[in-house]
Amino acid sequence: MSLNAAQKLIKEHLVSGEMNAGEEISLSIDQTLTQDATGTMVMLELEAMGIERAKTEASAQYVDHNVIQEDSKNPDDHLFLESAAKRFGLHFSRPGNGVSHPVHMQRLAVPGKTLLGSDSHTCANGCMGMLAMGAGGIDVAMAIAGEPYHVKMPEIWGVKLTGSLPDWVGAKDIILEFLRRHDVKGGVGKIIEYYGPGLDQLSAMDRHVIANMGAELGATATVFPSDEEVKRFLRTQGREQDWRELKADNDASYDLNEEIDLSSLEPMIAKPSSPGNVVPVSEVEGEPIYQSYIGSSANPGYKDFAMAAEIVKGKQIESGVSYDINPTSRQMLTDLVQNGHIASLLTSGARLHQAGCNGCIGMGQAPASGRNSLRTTPRNFPGRSGTKEDSVFLCGPEVAAASALYGKITDPRKLDMDYPRLTEPDEPTVDFRLLEEPLPLEKAKQVELHKGPNIASIPHMEPLPDEMHVPVLLKVGDNLSTDEILAGGARVLPYRSNLPEISKFAFEILNEDYYNRSMDIRDTTGHAIVGGSNYGQGSSREHAALAPRFLGLRVVIVKDFARIHLQNLINFGILPLTFADDSDFEDVEKGDIIELKNIRDTIGQSSEITASLQGKNKEIRLRHALTERHVDIMLAGGLINWVKEKQ
Amino acid sequence: MSLNAAQKLIKEHLVSGEMNAGEEISLSIDQTLTQDATGTMVMLELEAMGIERAKTEASAQYVDHNVIQEDSKNPDDHLFLESAAKRFGLHFSRPGNGVSHPVHMQRLAVPGKTLLGSDSHTCANGCMGMLAMGAGGIDVAMAIAGEPYHVKMPEIWGVKLTGSLPDWVGAKDIILEFLRRHDVKGGVGKIIEYYGPGLDQLSAMDRHVIANMGAELGATATVFPSDEEVKRFLRTQGREQDWRELKADNDASYDLNEEIDLSSLEPMIAKPSSPGNVVPVSEVEGEPIYQSYIGSSANPGYKDFAMAAEIVKGKQIESGVSYDINPTSRQMLTDLVQNGHIASLLTSGARLHQAGCNGCIGMGQAPASGRNSLRTTPRNFPGRSGTKEDSVFLCGPEVAAASALYGKITDPRKLDMDYPRLTEPDEPTVDFRLLEEPLPLEKAKQVELHKGPNIASIPHMEPLPDEMHVPVLLKVGDNLSTDEILAGGARVLPYRSNLPEISKFAFEILNEDYYNRSMDIRDTTGHAIVGGSNYGQGSSREHAALAPRFLGLRVVIVKDFARIHLQNLINFGILPLTFADDSDFEDVEKGDIIELKNIRDTIGQSSEITASLQGKNKEIRLRHALTERHVDIMLAGGLINWVKEKQ
Repeated sequence: MSLNAAQKLIKEHLVSGEMNAGEEISLSIDQTLTQDATGTMVMLELEAMGIERAKTEASAQYVDHNVIQEDSKNPDDHLFLESAAKRFGLHFSRPGNGVSHPVHMQRLAVPGKTLLGSDSHTCANGCMGMLAMGAGGIDVAMAIAGEPYHVKMPEIWGVKLTGSLPDWVGAKDIILEFLRRHDVKGGVGKIIEYYGPGLDQLSAMDRHVIANMGAELGATATVFPSDEEVKRFLRTQGREQDWRELKADNDASYDLNEEIDLSSLEPMIAKPSSPGNVVPVSEVEGEPIYQSYIGSSANPGYKDFAMAAEIVKGKQIESGVSYDINPTSRQMLTDLVQNGHIASLLTSGARLHQAGCNGCIGMGQAPASGRNSLRTTPRNFPGRSGTKEDSVFLCGPEVAAASALYGKITDPRKLDMDYPRLTEPDEPTVDFRLLEEPLPLEKAKQVELHKGPNIASIPHMEPLPDEMHVPVLLKVGDNLSTDEILAGGARVLPYRSNLPEISKFAFEILNEDYYNRSMDIRDTTGHAIVGGSNYGQGSSREHAALAPRFLGLRVVIVKDFARIHLQNLINFGILPLTFADDSDFEDVEKGDIIELKNIRDTIGQSSEITASLQGKNKEIRLRHALTERHVDIMLAGGLINWVKEKQ
Repeated sequence: MSLNAAQKLIKEHLVSGEMNAGEEISLSIDQTLTQDATGTMVMLELEAMGIERAKTEASAQYVDHNVIQEDSKNPDDHLFLESAAKRFGLHFSRPGNGVSHPVHMQRLAVPGKTLLGSDSHTCANGCMGMLAMGAGGIDVAMAIAGEPYHVKMPEIWGVKLTGSLPDWVGAKDIILEFLRRHDVKGGVGKIIEYYGPGLDQLSAMDRHVIANMGAELGATATVFPSDEEVKRFLRTQGREQDWRELKADNDASYDLNEEIDLSSLEPMIAKPSSPGNVVPVSEVEGEPIYQSYIGSSANPGYKDFAMAAEIVKGKQIESGVSYDINPTSRQMLTDLVQNGHIASLLTSGARLHQAGCNGCIGMGQAPASGRNSLRTTPRNFPGRSGTKEDSVFLCGPEVAAASALYGKITDPRKLDMDYPRLTEPDEPTVDFRLLEEPLPLEKAKQVELHKGPNIASIPHMEPLPDEMHVPVLLKVGDNLSTDEILAGGARVLPYRSNLPEISKFAFEILNEDYYNRSMDIRDTTGHAIVGGSNYGQGSSREHAALAPRFLGLRVVIVKDFARIHLQNLINFGILPLTFADDSDFEDVEKGDIIELKNIRDTIGQSSEITASLQGKNKEIRLRHALTERHVDIMLAGGLINWVKEKQ
């Protein structure tokens, strides 16, 4: 039977299940990736599970999120992560080395392999012919422990690229066009596979841009073929031996089909405050800007920064604009320095920041209140920039740089210059120390975990109760992001390994009282949350489930869930239910008491359960999509209890 | 009569008083400097005073402290400062342009002029033949308004430099040697004037290092002559026309005399946690380090960074060391990039941060708990790094770089290489946009102040009461720094324009209850603080007086005061008293109620006032050193009330 590239990847890694869209399958995981914001918890989980050594082919721990050190919490965590990486046989990337996704691509990515990462943009490495998926931290801990990863078999969506990109239009515009067509849930339950003659114009780093922002469509993964360009890329990184070909069979078909004619594209921009809110740049030209921001895993390439430099070279950015440059890796920064691009940026008036995720995750470079910020980052959810009332636009480096020059949103096609024909360097700096090698087993065994004062164990959690009488503490609309459930940013992330502390920030953006109200009833009834469609989109952070669970959240009832957050809810024993009839959403109000009875038997026997609204004489039919394994995990009160019981 | 250089500067600017050491004089101020941490308050004060336009020859507002933007507070303040600079006719340096002291030196410093700055390291510009002094923010506001600056006529301390610096010994070692000899109060009430043949080896930037850390001796100012080297420096900055000669007359004398034979020096280091705790590096060799940090106004020169680069060039820093590079200005960073030094640093494994004060003021790069940090910064007071239990050593770039290579404190003379013979560049990048020019008056008048939501007015303060019955809420020992009174760092500084919020951090390092206890009695009795010698040393931040005053601090009784903090106490109406007999310090305990009667008449008529300890049958003789003008200010309740009453 003919297979497309995604199907080949799945077939080669299938542990259980059938490859029928919607059915649960499990996949063996070759590689994992953790970053510091999620990784401290993963390492604590590995310790709790009593893991001797990572069972994957390669696992890497990166430090890229919390690299601003305002007190001892972040540096103490860095030391903990370094000790844990040594203890468990992981690669380690030190603070300042760069963003996990491009560094992983440069130093570890191998075509044909699976990669599971506790970061929603893990999908970026799909650019290398890998099946790369973001997941909850505990899923990644399980993968490091050698357990397969469970996921619903996605539909495979073939996207044929034809035609040639016009000048001033780049990879970012391709994915923004795709988001314009399909919005932030267009990819849910799907793997997006790109193919066709248009691929020839896209470097591996260009493909990284597109694969990265597959996360913004909610896609399970994005897959590019492993072709001559991937081979070339690996050669420049000194790893040609890791290449193998991966491409769809000639007569392969897809569950869904799409075509993008590259020659029809123009510079695009996502308006505040959703990556799906995309329009041509020409529609918003002239809007004054406060900030232009270059960087992040959504435009991580040498060429992206070189473009931002060439456009401003020999000119001065507009007075009043903060032109923020966030290099993606120390290796790439070295090349940009040596080829003169950093000098061009600095003399134009740019601000150069240390390599890392930085402002992309609200860690520095927050814009002034209510002022427009243009960013090459992947997301503009409300408040993600760190500024509560923010106004963030997403675009490619051409638009960002042109706008910095004029102090207003500018279509780069109107610049009085030729389009710079830039490519990734053929002989880039290759810095093998970006990723330290794992210690040999005997040495690793002797490493003691370095636990700073801000690292706390995960408290015991109760099994699923048989009855609930839980008040609805929050009712939210569609597309609630995990940034709104538990913000990233510098105030919050330092407490990622300290559950009682980080829980104080849960839902803070929506309701400042949530913490106090939930704590009042945490040890008596617990509480419920009701929401709309695509609940929990965005960042994969498991604290968005763990913190509410700590605060007594027992059940979430919504129209439908974003994939990773659904998994996180199950993993931490929060019952995820959907309305059988979406119109019932209107009848549930904040403050209502939801009653559920005989839960433990019911969820094992039926996919439906009926709730009553106390005092309202109203019954609501609810559904769950839990597999048998999920039911076991729910009954145990979450994955940690479940693993404990197994042992 | 023959004059030394310091006397010439004073004589030319004398408005009132006689040039007798210890007598109050007032001086006309030619230039001012404000940074963002203190400047927002200065600008609010200018607004409250109804100032039309700065009356100085040149005033500059820098943004260098709060350049990490984790939410809207810092960027909102940047916009406020930019609008205020435009409104009041000030130069403006945008975030990312660099640290005030070297930028001021490059773009505005003029030999023979006076400079008053709301930053304790303002004295650094004494390297240019200026009389440059740190002061409270409100003093600087008064200077901008055209008022003379009042100060006690200092003793002039002539320091003759002889001999030649050995290899691997630099300017930092000279000032560390001076601190070893005289400790952190050795310079109180003095101007340190350097002269002699040893000067010829010191570039203007080397002199900046020495003048900068005059602040750590408590000196009123440090003065270097304006000679051919200063002329050369100004020429490289495109400002040769600003040069004039300033030097001591041939037969000039000094109140005190000292000599340093440069050829006898060796690499020095200040151990935790005082800049006066200096020993030769050889005494602490081999101590493991976590961090090596290059930057700040205490080693701001191109050569300092080039040295840090040359030492690690082609090598790798020790695994586990965070080698943090904090450029001091965008202009200098450009040169370091273009001359290959940044590439050397990056490939060695260094972390490159944006230009600014950064970790020097606890704004990023905090070390891990209890780990050793080597820094080229001027201060290592406890907690200033941002880490509560820190262990910070101060040294020059040679020691810091050598130690980064080996992961332990290393005497650079043991490096297997020749001493790099580095100089400041003869044709450096000159970036005129580092400092924006003031707007013309007519345009300036039309500028509206941009006030973000975190900028609050200064509340009304009561005049000095005639009686006090105030409990001692804190008793502290010698050398209490303003960092301990009100920490810098990222948690605190963002509230610098929001007095009710910033007051929550007062004395927090010493006593976490201070805020709540002081608020309980703020509106009834107020409270007192008792301390030892050199109370209030260190940073000039006026919030260290303003916040305790907001919390009801009415009187501070100590053995003696650090100069700038004493001025700040007076300016904000807190009565500063000293023990007539230091042994009484032992008899006052925390919790004692101090009674003072007939205060208003007494302080005008006598320099002595007697306090009784309620219920202890103990009287204590106290002194004040208030001038007639100070008494007027105290009676009014501080300078703001005093200026209001004058108008």
